[in-house]
Amino acid sequence: MDLKNELVKRTSMFNTYWQRYLQIKKPAMLYEASQHLPFAGGKRIRPFLTMVSCESVSGELQKALPFAAGLELMHNFTLVHDDIMDHSMLRRNIPAVHVKFGEPAAILAGDLLFAKSFEAILGTSVDFPTFKQLQQDFINCVIAICEGQQLDIEFEQRKTVIEQEYLDMIRKKTGALFELSGKGGGLIGGGNLQEVAALKTYGMALGLAFQIWDDYLDISSKTTTLGKDIGNDIRNGKKTLIAVHSLSHATGKHKKLLDDIFGNRKASEHDVTTVYDLFRELGSVEYAQQRALYYTNQAKDAINILKQSDAKELLYQLIDYTIQREK
Amino acid sequence: MDLKNELVKRTSMFNTYWQRYLQIKKPAMLYEASQHLPFAGGKRIRPFLTMVSCESVSGELQKALPFAAGLELMHNFTLVHDDIMDHSMLRRNIPAVHVKFGEPAAILAGDLLFAKSFEAILGTSVDFPTFKQLQQDFINCVIAICEGQQLDIEFEQRKTVIEQEYLDMIRKKTGALFELSGKGGGLIGGGNLQEVAALKTYGMALGLAFQIWDDYLDISSKTTTLGKDIGNDIRNGKKTLIAVHSLSHATGKHKKLLDDIFGNRKASEHDVTTVYDLFRELGSVEYAQQRALYYTNQAKDAINILKQSDAKELLYQLIDYTIQREK
Repeated sequence: MDLKNELVKRTSMFNTYWQRYLQIKKPAMLYEASQHLPFAGGKRIRPFLTMVSCESVSGELQKALPFAAGLELMHNFTLVHDDIMDHSMLRRNIPAVHVKFGEPAAILAGDLLFAKSFEAILGTSVDFPTFKQLQQDFINCVIAICEGQQLDIEFEQRKTVIEQEYLDMIRKKTGALFELSGKGGGLIGGGNLQEVAALKTYGMALGLAFQIWDDYLDISSKTTTLGKDIGNDIRNGKKTLIAVHSLSHATGKHKKLLDDIFGNRKASEHDVTTVYDLFRELGSVEYAQQRALYYTNQAKDAINILKQSDAKELLYQLIDYTIQREK
Repeated sequence: MDLKNELVKRTSMFNTYWQRYLQIKKPAMLYEASQHLPFAGGKRIRPFLTMVSCESVSGELQKALPFAAGLELMHNFTLVHDDIMDHSMLRRNIPAVHVKFGEPAAILAGDLLFAKSFEAILGTSVDFPTFKQLQQDFINCVIAICEGQQLDIEFEQRKTVIEQEYLDMIRKKTGALFELSGKGGGLIGGGNLQEVAALKTYGMALGLAFQIWDDYLDISSKTTTLGKDIGNDIRNGKKTLIAVHSLSHATGKHKKLLDDIFGNRKASEHDVTTVYDLFRELGSVEYAQQRALYYTNQAKDAINILKQSDAKELLYQLIDYTIQREK
């Protein structure tokens, strides 16, 4: 099995399927705003995970499509609203929804995508108890994402955040959706309790690795000149795992340096570079890399109990893909 | 049956019930923001309608509580987001959620209430086909409300709006939720097809009467001095039924006067009074009153087919209450 081929195949199948929830109706501006992000690309890693999880317990791939669509619609809804809250101007290299359509239409487009996500999961062919379980899990997942986003916003205002708090935040903001992508696929595929639990653990671990690797890529990929994003993250005091590690390990003059510059919106280019170098000097960049690898190992261990299959092989490959991908 | 007593009794029962969906968890700010509007009062007309509709087809009142909670949570979510879009500072005489908690927390609080609304309807004790019906109706209702809000925003930017467009907008923005409050109660109560259809028609007609009467009260209750709201509505070009009627019936100098002043943010106090007087002179205020009465009659006719009961009596009384209430 070649992961890239299988990813392309399933992504194409998924994209054809979920279009039914993204048709243009009136008022056109509302529907165009709700299409904007879903049709702007995206790797569809979460739907892929749902489909392959379903297959890994001998379920039919097609059966997982409605729930996968629900998860991806919901994911897009949270991105649309997050971009408003975070004043992000770009997403997937195009203007964010609120930038192109204005804030009122962006709020409504997010709400519409949220409503559509429930419409999608309503199309899942399962019995009533399983449906109730899926829907309650889905609701808990949205709630976790809201909580995670609120924590992320609050953390930016705080001077320090400890690693446990950071982990709790990304478990909610990123992990919960990966977790449900795995678990939901397992439930729909008819997996037994042990298999569903394994896919759930796998999803969460993969999500944590994914998020930490994101932070790592952001900072490791620029060696000489600093990208605008990193500069902004340092000026905004964004609590990535790298920053959290440095903040709790810096002492003496290093501590003072972070106190002065990290989270200081007026920090100069030179100051920002100093903090960036300090992150490396304190071993925080390497630490984040190690932690991402730790969670990928956790993900690998979790699915050992699944019976051998092409789908299981894809789940293993997905782990390595997650920590190699360039953005 | 005394409507006010029965309303108080059911509202109290409802308020006790839905609190379970409004508990404070962490992060506290998110949950406090989501409690703010639900705990600021409100007449709970929609939950009351759901409960009494359920009773009117011999269903148990308690059985309607989860769905009623879902509708009211969803209603509150839309109000929180609408207030952001409309830049409204006050709601139920207290600061709007975004004013008190900031816009990011208000967006998230709305999203959380939306998620909770689905949690509430998941608690409804019905069979799977009925549940699917309720959930699809609920989703369609949210979508209609999003469309209605988008139209309302777009209408403010337009010079004229015809009555049919106005009606389409309030059917979505206000009517759909009343419609589902009646229909949902009927479905949960086990009503037959004819009864459920009657409660659906009743709900929509009541909702339209409610909205038009709101517009009418706004403008008729002030005889000598104009309230701030009316002045703003005229300056913002808000397309109420009264404005829509005047805009399509004014000719000659009246038409020119509306062209100049209605929707002109710099209109003087004197200008606003002139338009206000013109609304009366063109018969638009009386017309709105007549249309509200027309829909109340439609609501009355719709439930004639229900068998006699205390609940049916309450539904009749609710109509008169809707067009008498002072805000």
